[in-house]
Amino acid sequence: MPPMNPAIRALIAPRSIAILGASNDLQKLNGRTLKFLMDKGYAGKIYPVNPKYEHISHPGGELRCYPTVGDIPDAVDMAIITVPARFVIDQVRALGRKGVPAAIIYSSGFGEMGAQGHALEDELVAAAREGGVRLCGPNCLGLVNSFDRVIATFSQYGSGEVLEGPVGFVTQSGAFGSAIATLARRRHLGLGYFVNTGNECDATLVEIMDEVLADPRIRVGCGYIEGFKDGAGLLALAERALEAGKPIVVTKVGRSQAGARAAASHTGSLAGEDRVFDGLARQFGIIRARNEEHMLDMVDVLAHCELPEGNGIGLVTQSGGAGVLIADRAEELGLSLPTLSDETQAKLREVLPAFGSGANPVDVTAQFIAEPEILLNGLRLTLADPAVHVGIVWILSMDAYAGMLVDLFRTVKSETRKPFVLCWVAASEQALKLCREAGIPVLRGAEPAVDAVAGLIGYAQARRTWLADRTARASVALPELSLPAPGVVGTVEAARLLASCGVASAPVALAGDADAAVEAATGLGWPVAVKIESPDILHKTEADGVRLGLADAAAVRAAAEAVLAAAKAFDADARIDGVVVQKMAGGHVEFVIGLKNDPSFGPVLMAGLGGILVEVMKDVAFRRCPVTPSEAGAMLDELRGRAILSGARGKPPVDRAALVELLCAVSRFGAAAGPRLEELDLNPVLLSTDGAVAVDCVMVLR
Amino acid sequence: MPPMNPAIRALIAPRSIAILGASNDLQKLNGRTLKFLMDKGYAGKIYPVNPKYEHISHPGGELRCYPTVGDIPDAVDMAIITVPARFVIDQVRALGRKGVPAAIIYSSGFGEMGAQGHALEDELVAAAREGGVRLCGPNCLGLVNSFDRVIATFSQYGSGEVLEGPVGFVTQSGAFGSAIATLARRRHLGLGYFVNTGNECDATLVEIMDEVLADPRIRVGCGYIEGFKDGAGLLALAERALEAGKPIVVTKVGRSQAGARAAASHTGSLAGEDRVFDGLARQFGIIRARNEEHMLDMVDVLAHCELPEGNGIGLVTQSGGAGVLIADRAEELGLSLPTLSDETQAKLREVLPAFGSGANPVDVTAQFIAEPEILLNGLRLTLADPAVHVGIVWILSMDAYAGMLVDLFRTVKSETRKPFVLCWVAASEQALKLCREAGIPVLRGAEPAVDAVAGLIGYAQARRTWLADRTARASVALPELSLPAPGVVGTVEAARLLASCGVASAPVALAGDADAAVEAATGLGWPVAVKIESPDILHKTEADGVRLGLADAAAVRAAAEAVLAAAKAFDADARIDGVVVQKMAGGHVEFVIGLKNDPSFGPVLMAGLGGILVEVMKDVAFRRCPVTPSEAGAMLDELRGRAILSGARGKPPVDRAALVELLCAVSRFGAAAGPRLEELDLNPVLLSTDGAVAVDCVMVLR
Repeated sequence: MPPMNPAIRALIAPRSIAILGASNDLQKLNGRTLKFLMDKGYAGKIYPVNPKYEHISHPGGELRCYPTVGDIPDAVDMAIITVPARFVIDQVRALGRKGVPAAIIYSSGFGEMGAQGHALEDELVAAAREGGVRLCGPNCLGLVNSFDRVIATFSQYGSGEVLEGPVGFVTQSGAFGSAIATLARRRHLGLGYFVNTGNECDATLVEIMDEVLADPRIRVGCGYIEGFKDGAGLLALAERALEAGKPIVVTKVGRSQAGARAAASHTGSLAGEDRVFDGLARQFGIIRARNEEHMLDMVDVLAHCELPEGNGIGLVTQSGGAGVLIADRAEELGLSLPTLSDETQAKLREVLPAFGSGANPVDVTAQFIAEPEILLNGLRLTLADPAVHVGIVWILSMDAYAGMLVDLFRTVKSETRKPFVLCWVAASEQALKLCREAGIPVLRGAEPAVDAVAGLIGYAQARRTWLADRTARASVALPELSLPAPGVVGTVEAARLLASCGVASAPVALAGDADAAVEAATGLGWPVAVKIESPDILHKTEADGVRLGLADAAAVRAAAEAVLAAAKAFDADARIDGVVVQKMAGGHVEFVIGLKNDPSFGPVLMAGLGGILVEVMKDVAFRRCPVTPSEAGAMLDELRGRAILSGARGKPPVDRAALVELLCAVSRFGAAAGPRLEELDLNPVLLSTDGAVAVDCVMVLR
Repeated sequence: MPPMNPAIRALIAPRSIAILGASNDLQKLNGRTLKFLMDKGYAGKIYPVNPKYEHISHPGGELRCYPTVGDIPDAVDMAIITVPARFVIDQVRALGRKGVPAAIIYSSGFGEMGAQGHALEDELVAAAREGGVRLCGPNCLGLVNSFDRVIATFSQYGSGEVLEGPVGFVTQSGAFGSAIATLARRRHLGLGYFVNTGNECDATLVEIMDEVLADPRIRVGCGYIEGFKDGAGLLALAERALEAGKPIVVTKVGRSQAGARAAASHTGSLAGEDRVFDGLARQFGIIRARNEEHMLDMVDVLAHCELPEGNGIGLVTQSGGAGVLIADRAEELGLSLPTLSDETQAKLREVLPAFGSGANPVDVTAQFIAEPEILLNGLRLTLADPAVHVGIVWILSMDAYAGMLVDLFRTVKSETRKPFVLCWVAASEQALKLCREAGIPVLRGAEPAVDAVAGLIGYAQARRTWLADRTARASVALPELSLPAPGVVGTVEAARLLASCGVASAPVALAGDADAAVEAATGLGWPVAVKIESPDILHKTEADGVRLGLADAAAVRAAAEAVLAAAKAFDADARIDGVVVQKMAGGHVEFVIGLKNDPSFGPVLMAGLGGILVEVMKDVAFRRCPVTPSEAGAMLDELRGRAILSGARGKPPVDRAALVELLCAVSRFGAAAGPRLEELDLNPVLLSTDGAVAVDCVMVLR
């Protein structure tokens, strides 16, 4: 991935740093950064700025301190602002005058402090724009770039060991982000970058992640996210990252209503619906972690493994019990523990002890401690089996044998491109360190190991699909729509608009009165449905405004008169356009297709099985518009009730191809309507063995 | 809980131990136990037995070694058998002659080794029964009783620190059990007992757990389970433990098909359906853990907390982000983060920094490091709020302040009976140790903390319900059933049997031909259904053998003739008893009630919503028969589609009381039929606003 933005580059990899408000007390919050930079060997120039001092001393030497940033004789790449909130804007203006492209603002007292703070933050952003300074923060812990020893933070994290590594971590939360970074360090998992974006008044997590991933030393990006300021940007980043093969793993909180409320009160940002993000993450190959440990587990595996070519797990274990737990979890996650080939099993029988097992799980028993060849050959043979794509090895502590074991794993790693991970329960510090040096991921337990491997397999699959879908994506053509005025769109007009995108609806006509309804029905062909048509009645059934299966003129006449009367009774003030007459469509499965405009991501497509499954079980899938046929198919496969589409309960399968095409067509409408779209609800869509057709439609435009 | 069994008591807390096959090489597998016992200060007598030696030396002294167990001059409480499999049976016979009540058999080469091993194991059991010796094993790692320093194991676990503590751990897996015990030790969580039951040829996990829980120093039992040899025993144990208030937490593997297969091949025991165990665990207050870490998290909390009186969580955090994650997880688990009272919030405002938050989560910010009073008073006030039943405190590392912080928590703990737990991310060793000494549980992350607190709240709720349900349980009266011969029971006979237990079915009559059917319908009242009656046709619809909504004699006649003809066409050899005529029942919701005989637990009741929810979504709940009304109600609350019962999608709520009574009545039939029951399937049961009635029934007896 190419670098995107020189100012953001200067922010995360500055060649020189000014510290505004630097203190000569290196223990204090505004003195600490200078100490960290000196201690850890930052190679660039450091310019303390504070009119109180002429010099600042450090065990490593003495630095000249400047009264203002304007007094610094050289160019400055990045500034760190540590002064109280009320002085920050002046400092940013000074940076603008000096031509400093980027700054980190530690100071709090902005958007997180209510209305007054928001006003101050708006002023800050205006000053930054005017002066051409990009900002990280305010109210942030700063950042660490381990490669260049940029320890631009006041967090105690900065005092610990700097571990270079292939992971770029960007977090919207300071304290929780520090917790995650500390856990990564405990695992000896090197964070090349660790950036806290704080209030994100200017530079967003997405922009910074983009620049972090542009560093060729970074193999995996991970993020802690509370809300999106730039949903479209995230998806664009995800696309570039997929092309480049750099996985992005995120912990996004606010997935429950309580969590979303807590996030809103904490960050002040309004969250979109979590399930929408979930669907889009699948679509764009963003790997979603449940929590910080799950994220680090997946990062560890993604940073150190080749991508597997399938979902077959070969499990080598010293405990039958652990094997069962792993088999349980693998099945829950849709992974397989394939039976090994007869050839593999025969070879395994030669190397395993008599009481071991050569099936999958392959039980090498504790005997391998005395005879390491058992484990070495057991793992080799398991990985060599054609049905195995990823190996998991479960072992227990054995501190005394760590060196021997890691040598053995290193040997296997050097022989094969097939990835394998260790599930090393109660591994010693030394074992963890040795594994890290050998580039072998280590997970702490059986379930975390399977979960992490599922992330690896899922990412490999998502990337394969994405790359294979290039042509399909490029060939999606959006029609030019001539959209009517905002508000509810009439049924006939809506059907016409949808048809222009290729959406199949049952033929429909508007009739002003009962006579016209009979005439319309005759034109459409029998039987028909008659429904009230009013911009003020969106839920027609509630107003008793629907009559189905009308087979002759008398029935249509009676129905039209009845629904017109019912509508009047329901709401005397409702504007009534007449009735729509629609040809009855057949189908044995009800489906629901919808569009909505997500506040972060724009038009998104929703799909679900009608009735209980949508309304009670909330069994729906989301994707951003437009979708390709393979993306539409993935939505169907995601539904928990998907068996119904294949023909459950004695019924035939539905016409999946027609449904997929209908989903694509609706998504084209969503993409073409863009910001004008408020919502579209096709409910029900009737699915039969040879077709899929929408029979009711509510379309609202902005 | 009173001690249950003197021989099992002697096994886990022996006053003297003989080691059969003892070695004078204390590094060897059969020498290690002697070393462990001596090193750790076992106070009882130790008698090595091996004809090769007269004495065995140990740095702590010299022990006399006996040629045979019969040569030991004193009584022996427990023997450890370390000799090869082929010599074990003779040793057990010798123990019988000597009157030793219990023995641990390390030796492998029995049931885990196929048919030949099974035969040897059968012989072993016979010898033990004959001699009156209770056995633990074979093929096990032995046990550790920390209180009495009984380190009766060859596992390397025995060489580590002995931590006394309130937790009793019994495991069917040796290697995985050692892993769990090692993880517990790393947490400074003391296992009073750690027992591996191996092949369980005699003493089971249940018997040993029973005796472990009888020790007054044990507050919590936990187990790793692959399969049940004694399901009824487990439930009886669970009842006693609930009465005594000693929680049992289990990791039961084999929850997936793949896992069950792996467990079967590993242990040779056939597993019942996992979802059955899941339902019974809820019924009997057994807390189920997903995996070893989840289990230890819950054990930690249960061992150190009073039981809370409700499900309100008060969250005190230094990170808004962690607060969001905790709120997410709490909602997913059905727990609440209640809004604190105005009074609490006003008091919090006085103690929190300006940029903190006094809502729940209560954000004390990092400021408490400088002013510990903020955390102290923030936690005090939060716990004092009437809506809060459990506190969670989220903090991050801060190794330098561990002593100060633990003192603070100790103060709060001494002031309140309301439980609270720490979520202390990246806590230092010292912090963990101090917390353990103070009896304060420490979890490693936000989600584990909520999961563990959910276990605590769930157990408290289960116990309250159980105790409140005593009278209801005692008043369940089972009828004496006179059951017909094995096989499919005729519809009329089945309805009669069910009615004798109080089960409401739609009135039904058997008719031999069409004339009789008309007569029967006239007697029952209109409209009626007509269905084929044949012991060879269980799925009547498949044979086109059902006609519904017949309103007059002509319709009934035609229907009877049609289904009789259809049955002939479907299966010319089927025995046809005629047709059943059943009065049509009303109802707007379809339900399914079933009974089956679980291989481990006997008759169990199944409940689910009819149609898609049972057949596609597998949304069902299980309980052991008979159930009380509150247990039946809990089954309904467990269904994911439960909203339908309360009246979803514009329909009225069903008659929940009638459904509960119907579930109880069916469960009485299940309990009364006992081992004679093969299966019962009431599908559908029709639920209306004023009743619940079964309209189709398949009953099969053994």
